Amino acid sequence: MHTDVVRQGRLRGDRDGSIEDLLSSMTADREIAEADIEVDIAHLLMLVSCGILTSDHASPLIRELLFYYKNGVPKEAFHPRFEDIHAGIESLLIEKVGMDTGGRMHAGRSRNDEVATCLRIKTREILLDQIEALIDLRTVLVDTASEHVHSIMPGFTHLQHAQPTTLAHYLLAYEEVFSRDNERLYQAFLRTNRSPLGAAAFATTGFPIDRGYTARLLGFESISCNTMDAVASRDFAAESLAAATILMTHISRLCEELVIWSTSFVRFVDLDDRYCSTSSIMPQKKNPDVAEILRSRAGSVLGALVSAVSIEKSLPLSYNRDLQELSPHLFREIIPVSRDIRLVSGMIASAGFHTDRMREEAERGFSTATDLADHLVVNYGLAFRAAHNIVGRAIRSGSLSLEALDDASCQLTGRKLSEQGLSGDELSRVLEVNQSVAARRHPGGPAPAAVLDAVLHRKSVIGKDTAMIQEQKERIMVAKEELMDTAERMVGS
Amino acid sequence: MHTDVVRQGRLRGDRDGSIEDLLSSMTADREIAEADIEVDIAHLLMLVSCGILTSDHASPLIRELLFYYKNGVPKEAFHPRFEDIHAGIESLLIEKVGMDTGGRMHAGRSRNDEVATCLRIKTREILLDQIEALIDLRTVLVDTASEHVHSIMPGFTHLQHAQPTTLAHYLLAYEEVFSRDNERLYQAFLRTNRSPLGAAAFATTGFPIDRGYTARLLGFESISCNTMDAVASRDFAAESLAAATILMTHISRLCEELVIWSTSFVRFVDLDDRYCSTSSIMPQKKNPDVAEILRSRAGSVLGALVSAVSIEKSLPLSYNRDLQELSPHLFREIIPVSRDIRLVSGMIASAGFHTDRMREEAERGFSTATDLADHLVVNYGLAFRAAHNIVGRAIRSGSLSLEALDDASCQLTGRKLSEQGLSGDELSRVLEVNQSVAARRHPGGPAPAAVLDAVLHRKSVIGKDTAMIQEQKERIMVAKEELMDTAERMVGS
Amino acid sequence: MHTDVVRQGRLRGDRDGSIEDLLSSMTADREIAEADIEVDIAHLLMLVSCGILTSDHASPLIRELLFYYKNGVPKEAFHPRFEDIHAGIESLLIEKVGMDTGGRMHAGRSRNDEVATCLRIKTREILLDQIEALIDLRTVLVDTASEHVHSIMPGFTHLQHAQPTTLAHYLLAYEEVFSRDNERLYQAFLRTNRSPLGAAAFATTGFPIDRGYTARLLGFESISCNTMDAVASRDFAAESLAAATILMTHISRLCEELVIWSTSFVRFVDLDDRYCSTSSIMPQKKNPDVAEILRSRAGSVLGALVSAVSIEKSLPLSYNRDLQELSPHLFREIIPVSRDIRLVSGMIASAGFHTDRMREEAERGFSTATDLADHLVVNYGLAFRAAHNIVGRAIRSGSLSLEALDDASCQLTGRKLSEQGLSGDELSRVLEVNQSVAARRHPGGPAPAAVLDAVLHRKSVIGKDTAMIQEQKERIMVAKEELMDTAERMVGS
Amino acid sequence: MHTDVVRQGRLRGDRDGSIEDLLSSMTADREIAEADIEVDIAHLLMLVSCGILTSDHASPLIRELLFYYKNGVPKEAFHPRFEDIHAGIESLLIEKVGMDTGGRMHAGRSRNDEVATCLRIKTREILLDQIEALIDLRTVLVDTASEHVHSIMPGFTHLQHAQPTTLAHYLLAYEEVFSRDNERLYQAFLRTNRSPLGAAAFATTGFPIDRGYTARLLGFESISCNTMDAVASRDFAAESLAAATILMTHISRLCEELVIWSTSFVRFVDLDDRYCSTSSIMPQKKNPDVAEILRSRAGSVLGALVSAVSIEKSLPLSYNRDLQELSPHLFREIIPVSRDIRLVSGMIASAGFHTDRMREEAERGFSTATDLADHLVVNYGLAFRAAHNIVGRAIRSGSLSLEALDDASCQLTGRKLSEQGLSGDELSRVLEVNQSVAARRHPGGPAPAAVLDAVLHRKSVIGKDTAMIQEQKERIMVAKEELMDTAERMVGS
Repeated sequence: MHTDVVRQGRLRGDRDGSIEDLLSSMTADREIAEADIEVDIAHLLMLVSCGILTSDHASPLIRELLFYYKNGVPKEAFHPRFEDIHAGIESLLIEKVGMDTGGRMHAGRSRNDEVATCLRIKTREILLDQIEALIDLRTVLVDTASEHVHSIMPGFTHLQHAQPTTLAHYLLAYEEVFSRDNERLYQAFLRTNRSPLGAAAFATTGFPIDRGYTARLLGFESISCNTMDAVASRDFAAESLAAATILMTHISRLCEELVIWSTSFVRFVDLDDRYCSTSSIMPQKKNPDVAEILRSRAGSVLGALVSAVSIEKSLPLSYNRDLQELSPHLFREIIPVSRDIRLVSGMIASAGFHTDRMREEAERGFSTATDLADHLVVNYGLAFRAAHNIVGRAIRSGSLSLEALDDASCQLTGRKLSEQGLSGDELSRVLEVNQSVAARRHPGGPAPAAVLDAVLHRKSVIGKDTAMIQEQKERIMVAKEELMDTAERMVGS
Repeated sequence: MHTDVVRQGRLRGDRDGSIEDLLSSMTADREIAEADIEVDIAHLLMLVSCGILTSDHASPLIRELLFYYKNGVPKEAFHPRFEDIHAGIESLLIEKVGMDTGGRMHAGRSRNDEVATCLRIKTREILLDQIEALIDLRTVLVDTASEHVHSIMPGFTHLQHAQPTTLAHYLLAYEEVFSRDNERLYQAFLRTNRSPLGAAAFATTGFPIDRGYTARLLGFESISCNTMDAVASRDFAAESLAAATILMTHISRLCEELVIWSTSFVRFVDLDDRYCSTSSIMPQKKNPDVAEILRSRAGSVLGALVSAVSIEKSLPLSYNRDLQELSPHLFREIIPVSRDIRLVSGMIASAGFHTDRMREEAERGFSTATDLADHLVVNYGLAFRAAHNIVGRAIRSGSLSLEALDDASCQLTGRKLSEQGLSGDELSRVLEVNQSVAARRHPGGPAPAAVLDAVLHRKSVIGKDTAMIQEQKERIMVAKEELMDTAERMVGS
Repeated sequence: MHTDVVRQGRLRGDRDGSIEDLLSSMTADREIAEADIEVDIAHLLMLVSCGILTSDHASPLIRELLFYYKNGVPKEAFHPRFEDIHAGIESLLIEKVGMDTGGRMHAGRSRNDEVATCLRIKTREILLDQIEALIDLRTVLVDTASEHVHSIMPGFTHLQHAQPTTLAHYLLAYEEVFSRDNERLYQAFLRTNRSPLGAAAFATTGFPIDRGYTARLLGFESISCNTMDAVASRDFAAESLAAATILMTHISRLCEELVIWSTSFVRFVDLDDRYCSTSSIMPQKKNPDVAEILRSRAGSVLGALVSAVSIEKSLPLSYNRDLQELSPHLFREIIPVSRDIRLVSGMIASAGFHTDRMREEAERGFSTATDLADHLVVNYGLAFRAAHNIVGRAIRSGSLSLEALDDASCQLTGRKLSEQGLSGDELSRVLEVNQSVAARRHPGGPAPAAVLDAVLHRKSVIGKDTAMIQEQKERIMVAKEELMDTAERMVGS
Repeated sequence: MHTDVVRQGRLRGDRDGSIEDLLSSMTADREIAEADIEVDIAHLLMLVSCGILTSDHASPLIRELLFYYKNGVPKEAFHPRFEDIHAGIESLLIEKVGMDTGGRMHAGRSRNDEVATCLRIKTREILLDQIEALIDLRTVLVDTASEHVHSIMPGFTHLQHAQPTTLAHYLLAYEEVFSRDNERLYQAFLRTNRSPLGAAAFATTGFPIDRGYTARLLGFESISCNTMDAVASRDFAAESLAAATILMTHISRLCEELVIWSTSFVRFVDLDDRYCSTSSIMPQKKNPDVAEILRSRAGSVLGALVSAVSIEKSLPLSYNRDLQELSPHLFREIIPVSRDIRLVSGMIASAGFHTDRMREEAERGFSTATDLADHLVVNYGLAFRAAHNIVGRAIRSGSLSLEALDDASCQLTGRKLSEQGLSGDELSRVLEVNQSVAARRHPGGPAPAAVLDAVLHRKSVIGKDTAMIQEQKERIMVAKEELMDTAERMVGS
């Protein structure tokens, strides 16, 4: 039977299953097992490089770790009798190469810095993946927008028909929203990408280690300097969850639109069958299930953020075991985010937009009434509030005919607008939807001219973001290759 | 290859893994698979009883379901190609007994009412288990209190030494706290124990079903009447999570005490080694890890509550797929609560309380200064505020000697207390800790007399709560046995 | 200048404004000022009754308090130089009647029990008001339902047209939802209605007080017994917020329906102008603003619950100042709940339901496809899954004509349904909406017969709930009158 | 009587107080009233500059607005009969200068972009103030650290004595934590500092406005481009709340330390009386109330974040009234953060640290056991795990004497350490606390040499952060002065 190498020595007494169940971090540890192999190898290379360990002692350990790296961490390492994966791997190694060699690996570090390092390695990888997925989604939105520069649709406030806009304008709104999410994720990545290794329990160690060397081997940008902070802080987790929460809130909004747009009432969009389900008893149903679940996921991520924050709250320095309960919340909710983003991309890219229905609805509900009020301001010298009032009264009477406007104008100003020159033709022209949209060509506006500009600009922004993220990915990949090469060289394979 | 029986027919197109991953509810479904077997059997018995299905058609299905019930749901039923366990089981049955027979089971119901029924069966079971664990914990607290009726300790406000109390008083405070949690869990149980079955998609069904009969077969107290409410509402989940959150908050407080009490500074308690860990590098450490993780768990449950509420918020009637995302949060957090409660019981029952250290600390820090102020009020006619002020000044000068009090009294009233008869002996007597505690014998107070009364009273309350919960457990167990007996009789085994 | 009577004596040093700002609880204290007067009077009457204070000392204090009670607490009592309203009132009294008399009021109690008592008095009052408002809303829903027993409308799942139902069924679903909220609020009320008074700092007091007497005077049902629990626990606050959160989630759902139903797309409801706003620039707009804000309020109350729980988490016994930060969250969010409920009642009662639009939509989208599948099961011996499959295929082909069904049937079973006797007339009859609804007459179902039964039943439930709450209100009102009468008698007015 | 200029025209019916109460945003509007004046002035200057308004029409409006700016917004503007401050100010202006002039101000914008702009102006100002306060706190921490480079104290894990460290190391840990908060706040500031003005309702306007000009006048760094995003998004609010939540969580941890350190048990710190309170009945008490309330505030801010996110979740574009309910949560919780930070600075700067007590405790509890284990590894060739095990066994026997170590060593390896040369003197030297700390001189470690380096490095980082924030403040201040100067010039004063 394997024994947990950490526990023996100081403490007596066997535990029943429920204590092990509570204390075990194995669920979250599955996510960091691979990172732990890298950390073990980097630590061993450093111990040798600093003269703390001979390469004779290090080599059998590294050889075994390289085997795990290539073939996967052995199942036994996850057995619940180990408190965590770190104890599991160390115990297996000791069993394999003997205590005299295996027992030397943990010199100059502690589980506190080891686990913090693994969590950061895994989190930075997840963040990079989210950013890649987000860049794809932004590209899909811009590409789809570029096909719908002239697709006129009603814009809504309060879910009521408001003013006409273009589908491109709508889609570009979401792209701009997601570009800020991109910024937040990237900044969270930069703050995560700092190495706690070498902090040991919190006070570093008396061994002559080299923190900068392990940081470089593991592809970190720098060390997380103060060693008490390095083991005690989890703001990289809270921040990653906060960024994901805000991002998923945006996805919930977009999915709410897709749910509403695909109702029988609206029919603006036809989602691909892949993203829909039917009913177990109503054979006619086509339900937007993927959009519904994605809509709900903001609530899931928010809950994990609440857990993370309320767990960290009021904990004194340095490490407290409460922090272990935080990690599963982190990984449970940030890992699926990339999948969620990609599903949104897929739904948008495969969706059929019914631009005829959009156009039809854009003309309903006095959608250009503001244009008329503006026209009265510019051409008939009315104050905006007076014009707004006249048009409002006419609408309440049920029509925007010349007669209705004259009646309203008389009530408010004592004069008919037709007497001042307003004609029926002019009225029709002003109320026409195409001209209304075309006039709104300010930066960020819905006019075809404005959205075409925006499409070009956003493509260039996306291009820069892509280059930035590719560089970061490359840097980490190169470091990983070098780490493994150095390790291979030491074991002479 | 098995096919999902629900999806075929209406929708085209194959799905990639990430869509299935998102849509699949299999993680949470593991928790309700057994309940689903019961629901299937009860539904079939009802269909036969109401003349909707012949027993010839029902028998092979029931026979297979009884087999699953005894031997466990087959692994294949959880395959991700099925959206959920309901489709999984139905598909396996159809494969086994053929479409003509297997395809009849779903008549008169829908997955909407089926899943709601399963969720309630599992939730009521969890709630009952939590209550049982809580009654044990309350018993441990009262029993431990009864051993410490005379164990004097300092009470704290603001974590500062305040007034002396007894350990019994402390422990009984938590028992009373947990008795309210018990009430909340029981009321959540009663609201959960209502059957949605027969609601079908939300509008019941045209088949002549009998909702009361399935409710009785499944041990429900009544039906969840309105059928739109029955499939669309998840307040039983939110309420269960809220009750668990409040309960776990109380456990976090008790565990915070245990963490503080077991520091080198305080040493009021020695936790059993089973509940502690050591460090991976500091061989001297004995850390209260179980108490720390239990302290953190309130944050986990709170997060699940936030997820549940924010997912349900703003959903129109009746069923929306968002609700599927809610169930994993429910089960993930309410299932471990019983374990957590039992671990607290174990920690308290096995803890060594250092009553000598408690006694020593009870006498520090002018802990009976209030008694002195009260004494001055009663015996020297001072107003409370004046007495409070005099004692406060004396303490600020560093001592509660007769001299210090005289000085303070002179400053404030112009007269020495010693001139009014206060003697050094009297002062010592008043400041003595034992008499201070003994005087506080009001209901709910710390005096040995008061806590002895409380111990007796609480035992009787616990007795009543135990009887109530046992009756509910029995009722459900009997219903389950009858359900299976009826099923066995129909298949003639 | 008034001085804070509590602070003087022990502590040196003046504070700048920001410390006072942080420490002051005055915002929340405005809510409990009246309760504090009652608590002061009850405490004084008890001190006299127990022989701790002479009526000569008590009378001037009671006289002043009665004046405050009738004329309102003086503004000066809320000045930020006092840490809280309790210190404010006591300081004013001392200034008025002198230290020798005024300084006697605080004997035998502490701010810890005083504030806990005030919080419970105010909270129970708010809960009763919420319940009254909720009973009104439930009455409005049942009354409106009774007018729409025959108003056929489409029911939705996934916001897609599903099966026809009745508006009465819809409204009764919400009544049943709110009846559970009613239960939860009432149970929270019962747990709140227990008196902490006499617990003093947490250890009761050496004075011979009578906790039962003050509890009766203040209309509490019992004492909150253990005195450490009495001052340290705030689960009545967390529970009240949890109940309000769940309730407001239900209101968010109903308001989401009203927002959707009042769009130009749906037009099921016309909200009264009072509940709507227009746009500052789009004169044609009529926006459902009240429904939108009410929809959002669940998020506000949920936030307060999160604050309350995460503040209480991990606090050791007994009182900690953190608890002061909890009260503003409680009152800020539970006080407006009654207003919110009443606004929903008003919106529903004044809404115009467009039953013609509902009827029109009920017939769209193959809404009775399930009836057809069921019909094929009952009359043509098909298994449910086979029937479901045939109907689904026909719908995918675009029609539920006899031809389409025959084609689908041939594909699946090799036989036409028309050959088995299915006729076009029969098909029309089965697909007819009225008969579909009428057939769903199971308890809780949408059929006119079923909803009529439900209306009667719910009225009787509401009647019982009304009686229960009126009795509680009366009991508290009577206690309050007796308290003031007793006080008046003592001061001889 | 003033009338709300927006509502008239389209809608009928008077409202009762509760509707106005719900719809009114006046509480939050107090925070943005000054910003609204700036926005009105900038908008008017732009209208003139673009030829949409004559300076004759603009001047009387600007004159009045400048008066408000200097003398404060008139009280009447906040009257609840106005839905919001924007309608209030516009209505007052119209009353003052007449409809024909006053009614022209709102041309080319909407309340949607107006309120979004005001919210961002106020939020960026709050963020800058938080950053300034944070830079002060970081400076206090570094300065205090520089005084305690040699103050040895015990470090803790699990609140158990672990290894010796220095007070400087402890304080620098928090400085490094807060420097990341500083980064987050600054990045939130940059994303907030973008102008939505000109988006109008969401579709810009047909008037020939200039969005860039108003953005420059108001000191924004750029425009928030897409106009649908500009009015519909509140991620700047969610992000600000998330950054504040994480920051306040860190403050809660530091305050937890202060609460624990100031107990009678620990006595590491003596907080200045200003930050403490006494008890209303226990005259001896000195309670760390400020630290307690500050500890709780993370819960308050977290709650506001939950409210903000759950309110925004699932809202379709563009503006929905739900967003109004979000603003009070934002301002209620982010405004006091600067005060909170400054109180922490004050507490730390005025605290008396009992370095003698710290030193005394640093030597308790086998705090240098790890040093001994490391020594055995380096000098006696033991594997780390073996050394860890031997030291752990000796401690369990109660002592780290040479005898105890020899016994443990025999049990495990069969050999005594003393036989291998370990002497009592050597043992004492290794276990000595000063040398233990001095050896930990790695970057970020606790050794005096390491913390001195860190103090220098952190001062330079703080210097750069200060320069950055001063530049931003200056830029905004200059813009504001120019805005007012331009306005003054137009009205010729």
